[in-house]
Amino acid sequence: MLPVPVYATMAFAYQRTIHFADTDAAGVAFFANVPAICHEAYEEALSAAGIDLGAFFRDNGVVIPISKCEAEYLRPLQCGDKVGVSLRPKALSENSFEITFEVTRLGPPPKSAALVKTVHVCIDSKTRRRREIPGAIAAWMRTS
Amino acid sequence: MLPVPVYATMAFAYQRTIHFADTDAAGVAFFANVPAICHEAYEEALSAAGIDLGAFFRDNGVVIPISKCEAEYLRPLQCGDKVGVSLRPKALSENSFEITFEVTRLGPPPKSAALVKTVHVCIDSKTRRRREIPGAIAAWMRTS
Amino acid sequence: MLPVPVYATMAFAYQRTIHFADTDAAGVAFFANVPAICHEAYEEALSAAGIDLGAFFRDNGVVIPISKCEAEYLRPLQCGDKVGVSLRPKALSENSFEITFEVTRLGPPPKSAALVKTVHVCIDSKTRRRREIPGAIAAWMRTS
Amino acid sequence: MLPVPVYATMAFAYQRTIHFADTDAAGVAFFANVPAICHEAYEEALSAAGIDLGAFFRDNGVVIPISKCEAEYLRPLQCGDKVGVSLRPKALSENSFEITFEVTRLGPPPKSAALVKTVHVCIDSKTRRRREIPGAIAAWMRTS
Repeated sequence: MLPVPVYATMAFAYQRTIHFADTDAAGVAFFANVPAICHEAYEEALSAAGIDLGAFFRDNGVVIPISKCEAEYLRPLQCGDKVGVSLRPKALSENSFEITFEVTRLGPPPKSAALVKTVHVCIDSKTRRRREIPGAIAAWMRTS
Repeated sequence: MLPVPVYATMAFAYQRTIHFADTDAAGVAFFANVPAICHEAYEEALSAAGIDLGAFFRDNGVVIPISKCEAEYLRPLQCGDKVGVSLRPKALSENSFEITFEVTRLGPPPKSAALVKTVHVCIDSKTRRRREIPGAIAAWMRTS
Repeated sequence: MLPVPVYATMAFAYQRTIHFADTDAAGVAFFANVPAICHEAYEEALSAAGIDLGAFFRDNGVVIPISKCEAEYLRPLQCGDKVGVSLRPKALSENSFEITFEVTRLGPPPKSAALVKTVHVCIDSKTRRRREIPGAIAAWMRTS
Repeated sequence: MLPVPVYATMAFAYQRTIHFADTDAAGVAFFANVPAICHEAYEEALSAAGIDLGAFFRDNGVVIPISKCEAEYLRPLQCGDKVGVSLRPKALSENSFEITFEVTRLGPPPKSAALVKTVHVCIDSKTRRRREIPGAIAAWMRTS
């Protein structure tokens, strides 16, 4: 029996092509652009859950900045490569959560190209004090 | 009779969402990111025509750098906005061509957000002398 | 007598190195990053004139978005190249101005690498109606 | 006696201003741009050690891609903020090394804004097999 690929078991898949602007003079996606591509998948997932991105990412008193990011690069990505990004959010506390991403170079055969994790902390943008995660985000996490 | 929107009459439409990374502290897409989004549409058009992007944009002896770019910004684009990019290539000489792009903020109703033009010159990457546009690109221009 | 290089006669010179992140898989600075580098020079010029960039580029009721941008690429720029950017602002009307930039690849000998022009329009960010250029910007233009 | 700031004890300091293009619609530097700024400091450090960046970052048979990146964000960075980046390389094996970066928002008083770590693995770009770190890089690590 073939193993179920990790890619197929994850909650959300965002697909896009590696653009020329993502690459650097070594001919592959610049390392810092890979977490940025994962953030696009996060945005798409929020949008698919009915969250208004324009309002969400603007400073409206509550902001949810990224406090940590870890990336592991497994395979180079070249201009024209098709990638899928899967993600899984997990609450860490009343005011923080993490998202685990897998970037897969779509095949055939698909191959894992990067693993990324981001930690997000919900704060009041004026006082910079932690505050509760907004209900819409909490709901998105429960259903993802 | 309603006029046919320019958007609907153009040859190729690439769609994508304005990402958080495209925006700046004024809350809208940074001006230089709009021509970059148009370049993505160019890449998608080449790819749809069967051209291997990885090989095309690498330096393989023949490169087709952009020699000019003009952009006119008509409306701000915010994170989460859906845009469509239409493009039309036109040969200028045996070794140069221009591409006209229209970036439309998809509605309803759709509204033109930016007009961009790029001029491309085909050169030998070693000598930097002009040379003939490769056949696959010339064919793409004829059918677009 | 040697001619005075254009570079030496312009009003403001910002210097920086072409970073790896500026480049693409063709091995040179991605075309859209060149106007972005010019914008850095604009920011440095405003800052040198005592203008608070944080406040200026945030939306404070008055915004001065770029309405047009033109770029002409004369020479490729590679990772590690040192460039100087000169700029000259010019009022176009009570509520708009243009800035002419020259990007020089510092030598020896220095060589012009790109010419960029941006047009800026001052508007009320709520109504999107044109309004007068703020005094600090007008003063900067007179002395540049 | 005042404590010596961490910033002052580190090996190399690269300074630059947070640009408008670094920011996003939340008004602060986009998270993925902070590791990119650290990479600029790495490039400057290599360049200061006499290493030709153009040749180093091009694919010349030996490439040293980043295999891991970790970032911790301590304070938001706004357009116009001056930052200093200190770095310290450390060999991990014959063919890998890590670099620890600290991004400091220059004051007064200076405040630590981000901690970043990158792991680099030296490989043959054709076979993708690990190989020895080039002598010039090994020498740079010993003296940094």
